[in-house]
Amino acid sequence: MKPFVPERISLASGAGGRAMRNLVESIFLNGVTSPPGAVGADAMDDGAAIPLGNQWLVMTTDSYVVKPLFFPGGDIGRLAICGTVNDLAMMGATNVLGLTCGIIIEEGFARSDLERIQASLQAACAEAGVHVVTGDTKVMARGELDGVVLNTAGVALCERVVRDCTLQPGDRLVVTGTVGDHGMAIAALRADVGIEGDLRSDVAPLRSLIAAVLNAVGEGVTAMKDPTRGGVASALFEMAQKSGVSLLLDGPAVPIRHPVRATAELLGIEPLHVANEGKALIGVRPEALETVLAVLRAHPLGRDAAVIGVVTSGRPGEIVLDTGMGKRLLHEPEGEPLPRIC
Amino acid sequence: MKPFVPERISLASGAGGRAMRNLVESIFLNGVTSPPGAVGADAMDDGAAIPLGNQWLVMTTDSYVVKPLFFPGGDIGRLAICGTVNDLAMMGATNVLGLTCGIIIEEGFARSDLERIQASLQAACAEAGVHVVTGDTKVMARGELDGVVLNTAGVALCERVVRDCTLQPGDRLVVTGTVGDHGMAIAALRADVGIEGDLRSDVAPLRSLIAAVLNAVGEGVTAMKDPTRGGVASALFEMAQKSGVSLLLDGPAVPIRHPVRATAELLGIEPLHVANEGKALIGVRPEALETVLAVLRAHPLGRDAAVIGVVTSGRPGEIVLDTGMGKRLLHEPEGEPLPRIC
Repeated sequence: MKPFVPERISLASGAGGRAMRNLVESIFLNGVTSPPGAVGADAMDDGAAIPLGNQWLVMTTDSYVVKPLFFPGGDIGRLAICGTVNDLAMMGATNVLGLTCGIIIEEGFARSDLERIQASLQAACAEAGVHVVTGDTKVMARGELDGVVLNTAGVALCERVVRDCTLQPGDRLVVTGTVGDHGMAIAALRADVGIEGDLRSDVAPLRSLIAAVLNAVGEGVTAMKDPTRGGVASALFEMAQKSGVSLLLDGPAVPIRHPVRATAELLGIEPLHVANEGKALIGVRPEALETVLAVLRAHPLGRDAAVIGVVTSGRPGEIVLDTGMGKRLLHEPEGEPLPRIC
Repeated sequence: MKPFVPERISLASGAGGRAMRNLVESIFLNGVTSPPGAVGADAMDDGAAIPLGNQWLVMTTDSYVVKPLFFPGGDIGRLAICGTVNDLAMMGATNVLGLTCGIIIEEGFARSDLERIQASLQAACAEAGVHVVTGDTKVMARGELDGVVLNTAGVALCERVVRDCTLQPGDRLVVTGTVGDHGMAIAALRADVGIEGDLRSDVAPLRSLIAAVLNAVGEGVTAMKDPTRGGVASALFEMAQKSGVSLLLDGPAVPIRHPVRATAELLGIEPLHVANEGKALIGVRPEALETVLAVLRAHPLGRDAAVIGVVTSGRPGEIVLDTGMGKRLLHEPEGEPLPRIC
């Protein structure tokens, strides 16, 4: 049966959850063929890997429509670099050859804001150790676009592709740091709640963090995914479903900063459902767990790394949440509750 | 002196001419560094080439904001594939590894139109012999975006990079076919002039055409550029300026279809100033000219190929137009006269 897509595209179609998956599967992947030997191209992975000599060439792309353009902890420029660097890293591709960057600007947009975005984008490139090698500039008339949108694509090499569909029963689930920071910072800013000063996006390039982990344990990492749109919950559901496994999630073990939790309660938004922009979910073989945690915690971006669950061989795609006071089935979220989060 | 950029971005900043070059040079290339050995990254070429083993990896990107989305001869989907395939081909990179495609959709956009765009995009991939290997979907709220915009990036390999800044005095200037078709088809559609039925965009993938030429004459091709935004005139000025040469353009030799010329006169738009989406300008060494023309004319996309000028060693960046009734200096156009042409 063809997945349901409404006659008119809704915001949910871009929210990273089931509605988006339906749209992509029924329209964008419809009839798509892959190059010989390619991996991930037809499977909604974070990117695709193409065999090249005795290596893999990994390609990925993302558009950025975040609103507002500037927020505590980052802006659309930093987001565009980190998002693409992280998607490459999630596939194990940390040898980055180059990024492309396309910008579409609304007529009347301030030059000073463009300069600020460009400076931030360049700083993020320097931090990640990558280069934007080519770009494109378009302008749309006033009222045809709300401000600025960016697109980045990235190309990197690796010897082994890590996927998000290869969790195995017994694997430990590791998150590289606190959860919900980006989404809750944007939500607080939009809702103009007083606590916002304590909230900062976690947007950061995970290239060196992931490279360190993969160098240390190699195939001890079985799967990776960055919990962006739709948050940790959506990412875990996707990993579980694609891997054909179930997960036992240890609720109290999920690291959440106090202001994130407080804002979440105030706004009625679940921190597990909102976007992170500097975190990874990693499936780790039990024998590699200690090393992975040590490597992560020795890195500035992995200090709060935690084991948040285990892969089980129950009903495929099912996630059981242990709240600390009992167990219950987790429901798959529709997707990101906040439009234009990234 | 830093090139002038107005405090508020104007439509001209995206028109492919001097205003856009100023914006890109003063903001987007400001402080940009390139990977070691890379070519074109800091020079506003159609893409960048990175050394990879004994080959070059060429990367390029373009966003597409054409209005209307569907037009005689094509649509935004076909445009997005051909535009990126052609930018790769212009750098000599016809061994395409894969394309990425990001789509941003306005809430409320019709599913049936998305399906139509996707079908066209897939058909163009099949025609060009390339694959979209990974994508991204975003949705913006109603009124935040006018319909749909696309971004494609492309990656290809080649053994020799062709650039647009390497014309040499004595080279012949070849255009692969008729001029002004895309721009005039869109202009006629927007102006709703009666002649429009005879006008069709030339949007087409030049991969096999360019591969045939390069296979036949190799370094007999000295430079290439596709005359998109700003048309043949802007592209020739850019090639001449970057190469430090002057050009003598043979006006009557420029192939222009009758309905294009008629519409141009009706609308007061110069056919040399509007976008082409299936044409290339090629600098050819005199001894390779005959072969290049034979190869082009044997290909369905090169039947109307013509020699339209010669590279001279006059004042760098100067273009002299021989109208057939006398010679005059050509003025560099500001850029594409039609917003959202591609």
